[in-house]
Amino acid sequence: MSIKIIPAIMSGGAGTRLWPLSTSSAPKQFHALATEKTMIQETAVRLSGAPFAPSIIICGRGHFEIADAQLAALDLRPQAIVLEPMARNTAAVAAVAALAGQHSDPDALVLMVPADHVITKPEVFREVILAAAETARERIVTFGIRPTHPETGFGYIEHGAELTPGIFEIKRFLEKPDLETATEYVRGGHHDWNAGIFLFSPKVMLEELNLYAPEVAAAAADAWQKAGRDGVTVNLDADSFIQAPSISIDYAVMEKTHRSAVIPCEIGWADVGGFAELWRLGAKDEAGNHARGKTILIDAKNCLIQNHGGPTVAVIGLDDVMVISTPSGVLVCPLDRAQDVKKAAEAAKALG
Amino acid sequence: MSIKIIPAIMSGGAGTRLWPLSTSSAPKQFHALATEKTMIQETAVRLSGAPFAPSIIICGRGHFEIADAQLAALDLRPQAIVLEPMARNTAAVAAVAALAGQHSDPDALVLMVPADHVITKPEVFREVILAAAETARERIVTFGIRPTHPETGFGYIEHGAELTPGIFEIKRFLEKPDLETATEYVRGGHHDWNAGIFLFSPKVMLEELNLYAPEVAAAAADAWQKAGRDGVTVNLDADSFIQAPSISIDYAVMEKTHRSAVIPCEIGWADVGGFAELWRLGAKDEAGNHARGKTILIDAKNCLIQNHGGPTVAVIGLDDVMVISTPSGVLVCPLDRAQDVKKAAEAAKALG
Repeated sequence: MSIKIIPAIMSGGAGTRLWPLSTSSAPKQFHALATEKTMIQETAVRLSGAPFAPSIIICGRGHFEIADAQLAALDLRPQAIVLEPMARNTAAVAAVAALAGQHSDPDALVLMVPADHVITKPEVFREVILAAAETARERIVTFGIRPTHPETGFGYIEHGAELTPGIFEIKRFLEKPDLETATEYVRGGHHDWNAGIFLFSPKVMLEELNLYAPEVAAAAADAWQKAGRDGVTVNLDADSFIQAPSISIDYAVMEKTHRSAVIPCEIGWADVGGFAELWRLGAKDEAGNHARGKTILIDAKNCLIQNHGGPTVAVIGLDDVMVISTPSGVLVCPLDRAQDVKKAAEAAKALG
Repeated sequence: MSIKIIPAIMSGGAGTRLWPLSTSSAPKQFHALATEKTMIQETAVRLSGAPFAPSIIICGRGHFEIADAQLAALDLRPQAIVLEPMARNTAAVAAVAALAGQHSDPDALVLMVPADHVITKPEVFREVILAAAETARERIVTFGIRPTHPETGFGYIEHGAELTPGIFEIKRFLEKPDLETATEYVRGGHHDWNAGIFLFSPKVMLEELNLYAPEVAAAAADAWQKAGRDGVTVNLDADSFIQAPSISIDYAVMEKTHRSAVIPCEIGWADVGGFAELWRLGAKDEAGNHARGKTILIDAKNCLIQNHGGPTVAVIGLDDVMVISTPSGVLVCPLDRAQDVKKAAEAAKALG
């Protein structure tokens, strides 16, 4: 039997850690951060062509136009654009993804992926997906990213017994560790980063949601049932969807179900959670600067300078600093203070 | 005989040391840097009311509208706006100021002042001008600013014998000194900063120009004679004016003439030559930050943050840095690298 995989691209993020670039009207998945394409475009491109069916986009109502336009620009027509009336976390998204997948083809598998991740080895990713497909008929397979360093900003998955070559039972999910613990994880070889990417049969996902998170399952089913439909657009019913508890799929299902598995992989994955990652990922000149757009650098070292349509940015005599310029804001901050960017975003919102 | 003083406000600067604020279409004298008024407005205000007659503005042709509008906004109507077809340095300006003053009232004195200086004690300045008036009938009086520190960025005037209480002969003009020399100057008490402010009788200035810089005098006289006139506007003849050698009044006349004098004074004078001075002069919060316009400061210390109609500027975790935002550019630079701003200005010009 041939394998058919429906990408369900989760485009619900509204991160403030990339202000002024990322805003509520255009969060990071709609920006070209790491490459010349926007992150949702990159995600859709890497999940196009066999074995992938046209994708299902799950995004906020306010982002319909931008998502639709960005995919149309690459002629990547999704089979459905499901609009969330409000954000209800990833358990509800998984339920909707399963329902939409089942509606499209109950025999297909659904690959649920965030729209805003970097994957620099898409060919390897595709192979890993295909390698996981058989297991995914019975279990919800999560993708464990082999850690390249003791990162303290991600959750980890500890794998147990090998189910089939390269695919393991999940022993447990672990919260963001301290550096010592993360170092042990990396040394031990049994822990992978939890990337929040899942491959599953709609039937299995819905069964597990009904078992472990029945309120989420019921609210999502109701919202799907009563949705307004127009062409490829599915506008989830707000009164139903709001009934779904806001809970992550990890908490709601993955930490409880026995029908899970993890496939450790090295796919060049990165979560551009903040500007420090963007500098790490970006192309750099001989002085270690990543510059983009209209910029002037004089005696700058190891800086991240991005000008996205803002005034020309000139940086003189600074090291390890980021300057982000857009028509709505200018951010100036040491790269190692990137975690404080959300404070600036909140202050900017208050300023209006 | 009552004293009548005609301010001749030199507004010819086109400094690049204050990029992106200062541009060729709106150099620094047309910006509100130190106060809520623009520098030319402050200059005109402090030189209004008796003993001052309405002023003569000397500016580039391209700056007529902005100069006219900024003075009209405060209802300070100049008696003349003299337009230079091109910049020919201060000797030519002095000649034009003398000609315009003589034309207005041959018995009045002309006070030639740059439009872009800060003077925080205008009442003292006025007293000093009045104290110099009698001497200025026979000599070109320059204002020597009592040094507050061993500044290496200014020229100095060494004074000689006292001519009349508080007014001295000029022994010599001295170029920008090194720190050791500047320290000696300050310690000795015979040296003052050369502020480029002059009080003179038009007749005396024209005689000395004819004696020591006859080409400047002739070209200016010709340009004045053939000028186009419309209301208060005097549009100097370009073919004549361009004949004037580009030379400063210091080199052309002051270093040679015996008909000079200096009046040392403490008038709260500052030349906002760069952003470092702007930070020194500006009001600061308890963390030493001078902020202006839409700005967000998080853990910033001793910074100069000015937003002149640019996008909201957020600065996180930086010390001793300046960030200047305008619709045409953003500058980020340590305060002690302010001397390199002109490099950025040149690069910005090349970028277009």
